[in-house]
Amino acid sequence: MSSPFERHFFVCTNNRPPMAKPSCGQKNATNLYMKMMEEVEKRNLFGKVQVTPSGCIGPCFDGPAIVVYPEGTWYANVTEEDIAEIAENHMQNGQVVDRLVYKWPEA
Amino acid sequence: MSSPFERHFFVCTNNRPPMAKPSCGQKNATNLYMKMMEEVEKRNLFGKVQVTPSGCIGPCFDGPAIVVYPEGTWYANVTEEDIAEIAENHMQNGQVVDRLVYKWPEA
Repeated sequence: MSSPFERHFFVCTNNRPPMAKPSCGQKNATNLYMKMMEEVEKRNLFGKVQVTPSGCIGPCFDGPAIVVYPEGTWYANVTEEDIAEIAENHMQNGQVVDRLVYKWPEA
Repeated sequence: MSSPFERHFFVCTNNRPPMAKPSCGQKNATNLYMKMMEEVEKRNLFGKVQVTPSGCIGPCFDGPAIVVYPEGTWYANVTEEDIAEIAENHMQNGQVVDRLVYKWPEA
């Protein structure tokens, strides 16, 4: 493990045009990213937690989506109101917010 | 672990304008991303490995940078010539390519 971070959040902010399939960027994801960065600042977690906007990470019809590593936890349908809970539980205390976890279809 | 993927590669493709600090997007990162996707296709790893372009992940002066989870391996100064080795060793066989690993400064 060469990472100095406890945890890394990737917020999909991918944008697709109208008439394409849904994209997280069209569903408020940039504001989710900004709110997560505010939480990092407020909680003084800079250097412990990284939050990075990303391209498409998969569950496009259930976005906005966020993936958290090293756990590999996927959140879906995240709203601005959910960010404080994700920050308090997962970002600060390492506890997954079960009610927001995305269930991948079985292969 | 709710992720169905063995491994997730994030390729920083962040772009900054001239006169700003260096950015991976200005150093060929989009081509690195394309080459990694070609490797996923060639090796038939779709569904096992994800490759996602991302915003800034940190070591801007040593880009292009790639981070791989769940291990938390950071690669830096990656060139197109390095991608086949990363694909063969890490993407396909889970073996980190030590010579490309980024060493974070001690906190």
